[in-house]
Amino acid sequence: MSVNVGILGGTGAVGQRFIQLLDGHPDFELVAITASDESAGKSYREAAKWRVDSPIPNWVGDIEVRATEPEAVPDDVDLLFSSLPSGVAEVVEPQFTEAGYVVSSNSSNSRMADDVPLVIPEVNGEHLDLLEVQQDERGWDGALVKNPNCSTITMVPTLAALDRFGLETVHVSTLQAVSGAGYDGVTSMEIIDNVIPHIGGEESKMETESRKLLGSFDGSEIEQHDVDVSASCNRVPTLDGHLENVWAETAEDIDTDDARDAFADAPTLDLPSAPDPLIEVFENPDRPQPRLDRTLGGGMQIAVGGLQETSGGLQYNCLAHNTIRGAAGASLLNGELLVREGWV
Amino acid sequence: MSVNVGILGGTGAVGQRFIQLLDGHPDFELVAITASDESAGKSYREAAKWRVDSPIPNWVGDIEVRATEPEAVPDDVDLLFSSLPSGVAEVVEPQFTEAGYVVSSNSSNSRMADDVPLVIPEVNGEHLDLLEVQQDERGWDGALVKNPNCSTITMVPTLAALDRFGLETVHVSTLQAVSGAGYDGVTSMEIIDNVIPHIGGEESKMETESRKLLGSFDGSEIEQHDVDVSASCNRVPTLDGHLENVWAETAEDIDTDDARDAFADAPTLDLPSAPDPLIEVFENPDRPQPRLDRTLGGGMQIAVGGLQETSGGLQYNCLAHNTIRGAAGASLLNGELLVREGWV
Amino acid sequence: MSVNVGILGGTGAVGQRFIQLLDGHPDFELVAITASDESAGKSYREAAKWRVDSPIPNWVGDIEVRATEPEAVPDDVDLLFSSLPSGVAEVVEPQFTEAGYVVSSNSSNSRMADDVPLVIPEVNGEHLDLLEVQQDERGWDGALVKNPNCSTITMVPTLAALDRFGLETVHVSTLQAVSGAGYDGVTSMEIIDNVIPHIGGEESKMETESRKLLGSFDGSEIEQHDVDVSASCNRVPTLDGHLENVWAETAEDIDTDDARDAFADAPTLDLPSAPDPLIEVFENPDRPQPRLDRTLGGGMQIAVGGLQETSGGLQYNCLAHNTIRGAAGASLLNGELLVREGWV
Amino acid sequence: MSVNVGILGGTGAVGQRFIQLLDGHPDFELVAITASDESAGKSYREAAKWRVDSPIPNWVGDIEVRATEPEAVPDDVDLLFSSLPSGVAEVVEPQFTEAGYVVSSNSSNSRMADDVPLVIPEVNGEHLDLLEVQQDERGWDGALVKNPNCSTITMVPTLAALDRFGLETVHVSTLQAVSGAGYDGVTSMEIIDNVIPHIGGEESKMETESRKLLGSFDGSEIEQHDVDVSASCNRVPTLDGHLENVWAETAEDIDTDDARDAFADAPTLDLPSAPDPLIEVFENPDRPQPRLDRTLGGGMQIAVGGLQETSGGLQYNCLAHNTIRGAAGASLLNGELLVREGWV
Repeated sequence: MSVNVGILGGTGAVGQRFIQLLDGHPDFELVAITASDESAGKSYREAAKWRVDSPIPNWVGDIEVRATEPEAVPDDVDLLFSSLPSGVAEVVEPQFTEAGYVVSSNSSNSRMADDVPLVIPEVNGEHLDLLEVQQDERGWDGALVKNPNCSTITMVPTLAALDRFGLETVHVSTLQAVSGAGYDGVTSMEIIDNVIPHIGGEESKMETESRKLLGSFDGSEIEQHDVDVSASCNRVPTLDGHLENVWAETAEDIDTDDARDAFADAPTLDLPSAPDPLIEVFENPDRPQPRLDRTLGGGMQIAVGGLQETSGGLQYNCLAHNTIRGAAGASLLNGELLVREGWV
Repeated sequence: MSVNVGILGGTGAVGQRFIQLLDGHPDFELVAITASDESAGKSYREAAKWRVDSPIPNWVGDIEVRATEPEAVPDDVDLLFSSLPSGVAEVVEPQFTEAGYVVSSNSSNSRMADDVPLVIPEVNGEHLDLLEVQQDERGWDGALVKNPNCSTITMVPTLAALDRFGLETVHVSTLQAVSGAGYDGVTSMEIIDNVIPHIGGEESKMETESRKLLGSFDGSEIEQHDVDVSASCNRVPTLDGHLENVWAETAEDIDTDDARDAFADAPTLDLPSAPDPLIEVFENPDRPQPRLDRTLGGGMQIAVGGLQETSGGLQYNCLAHNTIRGAAGASLLNGELLVREGWV
Repeated sequence: MSVNVGILGGTGAVGQRFIQLLDGHPDFELVAITASDESAGKSYREAAKWRVDSPIPNWVGDIEVRATEPEAVPDDVDLLFSSLPSGVAEVVEPQFTEAGYVVSSNSSNSRMADDVPLVIPEVNGEHLDLLEVQQDERGWDGALVKNPNCSTITMVPTLAALDRFGLETVHVSTLQAVSGAGYDGVTSMEIIDNVIPHIGGEESKMETESRKLLGSFDGSEIEQHDVDVSASCNRVPTLDGHLENVWAETAEDIDTDDARDAFADAPTLDLPSAPDPLIEVFENPDRPQPRLDRTLGGGMQIAVGGLQETSGGLQYNCLAHNTIRGAAGASLLNGELLVREGWV
Repeated sequence: MSVNVGILGGTGAVGQRFIQLLDGHPDFELVAITASDESAGKSYREAAKWRVDSPIPNWVGDIEVRATEPEAVPDDVDLLFSSLPSGVAEVVEPQFTEAGYVVSSNSSNSRMADDVPLVIPEVNGEHLDLLEVQQDERGWDGALVKNPNCSTITMVPTLAALDRFGLETVHVSTLQAVSGAGYDGVTSMEIIDNVIPHIGGEESKMETESRKLLGSFDGSEIEQHDVDVSASCNRVPTLDGHLENVWAETAEDIDTDDARDAFADAPTLDLPSAPDPLIEVFENPDRPQPRLDRTLGGGMQIAVGGLQETSGGLQYNCLAHNTIRGAAGASLLNGELLVREGWV
């Protein structure tokens, strides 16, 4: 089985990760890349300022970049991944879904819309059924699925695992890599020998997206989880890998052995990009560390460490690769789920 | 008035800060520097691997380094600052206090001992009176005063200010500079493009020292505050300046204007190294940042920002220079208080 | 004596250094700051993204930013410093000189023009007399003086000192700080854990500007020095301070003692911003280092180290602060010379 | 064919690279790892502070570490790789060669000894025949081969290629990664926001080793090349990858097309770890860059860029991975050559 896929906005930092991950993918064949108008018509090699640390695959370098509009994309494309800037995506993604395309999008627009599934396959894959409501209400032939923000996705699989103890309150402090802001997002003068204790909009994304992801779908709408998440977000001088300090307070006490069991029980899916196990627990309190552990499971694993019982819950650290599990890999995994569930 | 002072363990990173801060001090004259036996007899210039970013003061470079033992220190020294490794300090500091010296120490040993005052002058200067108990019990002519750990001292002045609302619970996540581990403490291979989510012993220092600092002295002993502090400590690739994300839960709700008032009301002392104001509040949520704000008030100010009301309290960030306010400057200010209070 | 001065393009990284250096200047009073049209009318505090590590001086924060055009600048301004982008400066600087202003400019345009003096006061102050030719030929009441590029100015004072041995050939490799590219010039993703072995146009600036600076003025034109400079320029992850590895080949052999004498003989001027000595020689081969030594002499000194005799000349390292001695401080010193020589 | 190999000094930074490279090697089977006495008897997992960014191979973690002495190593080991500290290697390597072992060593001792081949297989593989002289003179059954220093090996393959134009003089400035100093070699306080313009002994290694590597073997001794190399070595804040600015002066002029041809003609060997091509030339003057290009050819390729004709020769940059091509991979490739040539 081979599915023809395309990338909307494929020349940026996340777009380059999509290409890296699609190179050699067992089921997906990349046949179209779109970008801004000034890139359209150029070869991908010309259009992209390639910055990933493996050379650009030759067959991709020669692909001609297309304009980001439905007419410019060939009809035999079955699935589109989107890493468009959210302002552009807000306008363009509905044009594609209206034209019948299925779009798995990493852009931040519409994540909290009532009829748009926000999905981490191992956490709430069943929310995909919300697409029936979406197609009904919007009259779309296509469909739009979102993955959450990179800082949210690092933490939520661990919260889902701990919800068996009755998740009530979460305090989380993030130490986020510069790649999360895009290639030009953080200047060197801002971040060398420095930390920036604020990332615009990030804290509220973590607080609202978590409730939707951990919520339940009753056949017609998502009932949000009532967990109270309070986040404090920091940009630090790392290239890739978001590290997070978490305090989860729960209805029941958690001892660290129970927590280990809960993390070990996190589901693993039979999808090409799904890691096994989903959550890797380190016993050395020094770990996980961004540079050493961000590529675990091909960058799709959630690394956890520093488990301590704390008053009313569990204190721990978690880490994921922000442009793989937190962006391109997240959309890709959603795409694999869409195929398995028959939406593509 | 001029007080002759000495430094125990003056060649390391904190020792060098002591020298920088004593250069031009209005009341203190540096007359003796001790170090390990292999340095004794050398000029300070030879013995210290000077790494501060201003040249070594000429008059200091020529001082002959002494052994770290009471007999090696001249009798006319009135006050000693200590930045000895804690294992050494544990043995040596009592020798000096027994010999009649007053020691203002930054070393971590004995900070939690019942009869040793742990002091931040603007927070709990009255704990100095515990020295009467100390001299009584130990039969010392001298006296031993401690300042807290660098990560504790960054946060506690802000907690003291918020205690008017009834401080109950604190979650704090730290982003600590490499200089906090000493000159050789963190290798470049450990920290470039990386974060280490663990600093041995640091979390418990923040948890226990805070309770003692915020406690009250009843004339015979310190009654510890019952605040419950839970800390998560990280080493990040900054040179100086510890940044901390704090959630303070209090009996009363705190709105941000009340918090600003509380921070503005923090006391400022009439001592040469005391900053005015003690706490500087930034309105731009991007600030404070380590590189831009660590030298505020000569490195003695606590910078605060990102104030947000949170369920049951206040969320904010605080920052201080870890080798000035958090180490050498802390001991120096304690020394100034000891003089004013007549202990020297 | 007080001279009213203004800054053309005062909100960027170099503009901020101008302000820092003018704060407390004995002879110059800052009365006007210009910037782009979108900043005009705002307070400086609003218009500038202040990033220097000392707070913005209060009296400067309140200055109203003006448009960058002669009519917008008050008539009683005697001297203008320019840190405009070179494309803008190319157009605007002649408008100011035509209107009678004396402009001391750091912008790279026109540096190699026949009738524009390119000056380092300690090296070729006498080139200022070229202004008579300039005013004659252009019919200007004002005057335009340039300082060289930051990488050139780090090296040329040392070459001038060595020219007593008959300078013939120079190989120079630079390790340049990110601030040299301006606040947004180098992204964090480009430079963390990395080096960029190319800086557009930099190598040829070093090669051509050096010949003009070391040349002689015969009363009507500059006769360029015939030294052959070959440069290789690298951007490295430092914030400030350009370090350069130099091999100078000379007609006579140089032993390191002769070199030390030559460096010690470099002139020091009686101007407020001129350092004394001009060149500081380190004996420890580890020095100078950017972080430790870039602020020597208030950032105006040239630090030299690693002297070795090499076949046909001398091998050594030199360092200067690229936004002080290499930019704002360079223009300022030229301004001080212009005043002393009666051009202002 | 399978060769049993061991590692002398296998727990450090280079030792860990050996293990990474031997994991899955087609011909070599790792059967013994030695380390210092305090590590002997522990499992490799316990003894090594594993810091490479891929997990420790499971089968290696369980290996019991042995003492570094011939009696402790099993007899069926055919080939030993050495990454011992040079002081230790000086004493221990001869004990192993005397006991009959063939040692391919990365340690810096004895590299310039008359009867020790210093080899880069693609450059001077024929120097291996010097082993006959070595065994004769020393009465060894075993043999000792060295690879050069990491900064030397980055440059010499390019010099060998250019020698067809008559290599005479080389100026080289290096920008070296911190891993070259070993795991603890450079502290974070030394190198964040900084450059160290000196690496003890490095410059003379580049100058002397190059002459031996480029020399010819006449059947009894190595006649050194008479090229005059002058090096200036800098440590910069990169993790891996040494970048070098080179000026090569030659008897004949070199145009850049001829240089490209010369680099393309560099030999590629039919050995498992030999890259093809040996030298990769970049046309974009921004490249090669350490972070983006250090893993080319599995870290065994030499990347070249920035080619410019210069007076009397060629100016260019070169880059190699310092702990792969510059250390562990270099010894490994020498080991592969030793096997092919029948010495193992």
